[in-house]
Amino acid sequence: MLIEANDEKGLVHKVSSIFYNFDLNILSNSEFVDKENNKFFMRSVVDGDVDLEELKKALKEKLPKSSTVRVISPKKKNIVIMATKELHALGDILIRHEAGELEANILAVVSNYDKLESLVNKFNIPYITISHENLDRHEHEGKIIECIDAFEEVDYIVLAKYMRILTPRFVETYEHKIINIHHSFLPAFIGANPYKQAYDRGVKIIGATAHFVNNNLDEGPIIAQEVIHVDHAYSWKDMQRSGKDVEKVVLSRALKLAIEDRIFVYANKTVIF
Amino acid sequence: MLIEANDEKGLVHKVSSIFYNFDLNILSNSEFVDKENNKFFMRSVVDGDVDLEELKKALKEKLPKSSTVRVISPKKKNIVIMATKELHALGDILIRHEAGELEANILAVVSNYDKLESLVNKFNIPYITISHENLDRHEHEGKIIECIDAFEEVDYIVLAKYMRILTPRFVETYEHKIINIHHSFLPAFIGANPYKQAYDRGVKIIGATAHFVNNNLDEGPIIAQEVIHVDHAYSWKDMQRSGKDVEKVVLSRALKLAIEDRIFVYANKTVIF
Amino acid sequence: MLIEANDEKGLVHKVSSIFYNFDLNILSNSEFVDKENNKFFMRSVVDGDVDLEELKKALKEKLPKSSTVRVISPKKKNIVIMATKELHALGDILIRHEAGELEANILAVVSNYDKLESLVNKFNIPYITISHENLDRHEHEGKIIECIDAFEEVDYIVLAKYMRILTPRFVETYEHKIINIHHSFLPAFIGANPYKQAYDRGVKIIGATAHFVNNNLDEGPIIAQEVIHVDHAYSWKDMQRSGKDVEKVVLSRALKLAIEDRIFVYANKTVIF
Amino acid sequence: MLIEANDEKGLVHKVSSIFYNFDLNILSNSEFVDKENNKFFMRSVVDGDVDLEELKKALKEKLPKSSTVRVISPKKKNIVIMATKELHALGDILIRHEAGELEANILAVVSNYDKLESLVNKFNIPYITISHENLDRHEHEGKIIECIDAFEEVDYIVLAKYMRILTPRFVETYEHKIINIHHSFLPAFIGANPYKQAYDRGVKIIGATAHFVNNNLDEGPIIAQEVIHVDHAYSWKDMQRSGKDVEKVVLSRALKLAIEDRIFVYANKTVIF
Repeated sequence: MLIEANDEKGLVHKVSSIFYNFDLNILSNSEFVDKENNKFFMRSVVDGDVDLEELKKALKEKLPKSSTVRVISPKKKNIVIMATKELHALGDILIRHEAGELEANILAVVSNYDKLESLVNKFNIPYITISHENLDRHEHEGKIIECIDAFEEVDYIVLAKYMRILTPRFVETYEHKIINIHHSFLPAFIGANPYKQAYDRGVKIIGATAHFVNNNLDEGPIIAQEVIHVDHAYSWKDMQRSGKDVEKVVLSRALKLAIEDRIFVYANKTVIF
Repeated sequence: MLIEANDEKGLVHKVSSIFYNFDLNILSNSEFVDKENNKFFMRSVVDGDVDLEELKKALKEKLPKSSTVRVISPKKKNIVIMATKELHALGDILIRHEAGELEANILAVVSNYDKLESLVNKFNIPYITISHENLDRHEHEGKIIECIDAFEEVDYIVLAKYMRILTPRFVETYEHKIINIHHSFLPAFIGANPYKQAYDRGVKIIGATAHFVNNNLDEGPIIAQEVIHVDHAYSWKDMQRSGKDVEKVVLSRALKLAIEDRIFVYANKTVIF
Repeated sequence: MLIEANDEKGLVHKVSSIFYNFDLNILSNSEFVDKENNKFFMRSVVDGDVDLEELKKALKEKLPKSSTVRVISPKKKNIVIMATKELHALGDILIRHEAGELEANILAVVSNYDKLESLVNKFNIPYITISHENLDRHEHEGKIIECIDAFEEVDYIVLAKYMRILTPRFVETYEHKIINIHHSFLPAFIGANPYKQAYDRGVKIIGATAHFVNNNLDEGPIIAQEVIHVDHAYSWKDMQRSGKDVEKVVLSRALKLAIEDRIFVYANKTVIF
Repeated sequence: MLIEANDEKGLVHKVSSIFYNFDLNILSNSEFVDKENNKFFMRSVVDGDVDLEELKKALKEKLPKSSTVRVISPKKKNIVIMATKELHALGDILIRHEAGELEANILAVVSNYDKLESLVNKFNIPYITISHENLDRHEHEGKIIECIDAFEEVDYIVLAKYMRILTPRFVETYEHKIINIHHSFLPAFIGANPYKQAYDRGVKIIGATAHFVNNNLDEGPIIAQEVIHVDHAYSWKDMQRSGKDVEKVVLSRALKLAIEDRIFVYANKTVIF
């Protein structure tokens, strides 16, 4: 259960009363108040026999009008992965999926190249190549949207090193649903070839950032970040190679948080419980 | 406010009702249920005008008999530091204290040598040398206890590289009040000269552990740990040198957690909010 | 080129003279002197047209008698992976292999269960099940040795969560060739179920260690270690789950170091360039 | 001994021959070739009885004309620290100095405020207040330069949270001698109040960067960087507080590298051995 509300006295009391009345046992409870924006966030995992709609209704009635209440029963999320030519981030998700680590159905992998097809097919997951050749950006994305919308319900679109810039139309269609991995510790090295930028700047740390995609390239709400140390002996190719390990770990971590409904998005930031 | 209770349905509800009735605003709230031991832990920071004793009484009445309730108003903690000859951990605490980072009064530094006296005196803090020479362990500790008990109230005793083993009598006198820094990531390298042990074993990581002291040497509840990477080029003296930076950071972190009343101790572990 | 010798004045001079005489260009050079054991280690990557045997002979002649000289031309290493039922460490190696990250041929995966067969077969790598049922340890290992020795040349045997203890006979057969991943930051939590041990001890850091296997369980020379922070909210199952990410990263890192001939083993330690 | 040269075949051979002829024992040796810029770097620690000037001459003669050779005998470096009002970074250096960890003489602390005077005086180090009030930037810096130049020899100027921007004149006067700590993992959050910027951006990692100062604000050669994880619960004041621990560690680490003559600067980067 996820609640987002304008903060006021007694919110925890109200929510816990309802849980008590519905005879629910709280397994875990996280709250956060953003004083600057006067926002209250709460995530509760509860156990008990209950009609979800009634629970939601009861919460809605008692909480301030401004509140957003999400009552979610645990079920597998549906995801579509987009990739281009690089294997490591996609491969890590496929292996985790195979190992049963991800509570998700991978509906398909969509790519603008066929390079990763044989890998994906090994795992009995549909691979759909939608080449961008001879298409303008609008047409190409139209085809991808069509492809995605053919699925009944898509919870998240994971950009596992999808190397094309998305248009505002695409981004708005799937707001807060597109998770991207950027190969730098944002906001450093926005844009193309961040490892080359990092090398040229002579940094001693490189990293990766998983974030929701919004209309400003590489400026969406950050979900997870990780870094590793490098030194003068790293060429930018070495940085790229080492960076791959960070990228795949960070993307998988962000995907896991999303799948487990642990993320709130507001004010271009995330609250993660 | 810190609550420790046997877990049962409705605890959060009960606590939040009382807050509501006392017209208190919850600034932050942390809960944890240890399912294995069926224990419930809660730490709330609340804001409002209230008689602490009445609040405590109300909580005691409504919560299960087994509960422990601590209602604490923010005030400076009183600490005594014990040291031997090494300067780094003690020095870091002194500098933080000088910078106003620690909500604590340093009542005194007690040492079995006078080596650090001139440093401590710079900060206008009493330095008390209690030499162990010509005294058996029991006599020596008796003198230290006498010295500590001369202060009106001592919240924590910080062992900033105090290099003598404490007897059960001493430890029991100040249960859950003595914070020690051990120069390894426990439980690795218990006992003397852990850096030498680490060097001999050829580890690629060294670390430090801050823990409450109990009767089993280096086996008390762990508060904080941190590590750094090393390689074959480190002699054990190099490890010791680099390790000092970890030691002082970890000890200061643990002390801060204690001072801010963020630690529960149970089952030889800590719950830290 | 890897040189290990008793240290004496002029070793670098001697080696660099030979390189100069053979008209070789030094691409990178690493040296280390272990003063305690009076041992000299050197790894050079050189570029040029040269007869490897002649170079080796020249080095042997000029260096002290005690020296060990390995002159290696870059070629793919042959590895056999051993696993039991867990997928994550094996899967990570398979994906890296598929991505071309590892300069290695995976000759086979050998397991005492058939659980991972379908995964391995996806990658067109032979999967050989050698069940331990109804066999004593000696017989079971005999079969594995037979299986491994059927390959022409095996450079490394990688234990990707192979959950059976190896006998001295097996270990001696493949000295300094068996790389294991242990799921703790050794030497903490030697033996069975380290995550449960870590949970019971209440540590704030867990980790993993890749090491060469010797006759003392979990006491072989350490190649790589990594850790992550945990807190009181982690059950031991949570630790196990999070630990998997560390395990796979550390094992792959160690394997890469081995494949690139970057490791010296001596005095139950490693020197890594 | 530090050598910087255009790369060519046989450099290591030439240097090691000279060492051999001078009967010097190599204690440690580090080399690096930057292929992109065709630059060779070497740092050797040698042991033996030798006339430094003669050694330098011999090296100069044998090495390419373009080479820079520094032959340094170990002696304490002279440093001047500049600070403003914050205590933590300065305090850490003072304590390390007191503990004998730094092979340096602190000639003076220069500040534009008198706030830290009583702290510095505790350590018997001269504190010189040069207020910027009623002075333009040029005049103010003129006074500081005058003050610094009154010392016989200054190896490094350490900006321990000196919160004023330096003019090109000042920077050029002490090229590659001024070490600054910037409170972000550069190049992220250049400019004022990086913690506020980091908070607004919603990052999950904050950090600090020690670098040599050049004419472009926050763009000089990076010496050391470190980061810590933060989450949504951190206000920017919390970030600032936690960041101080990183700042002081990174600045002290950079200072130590400089004092030990481990840094080469070129192409706006550092090579660190």
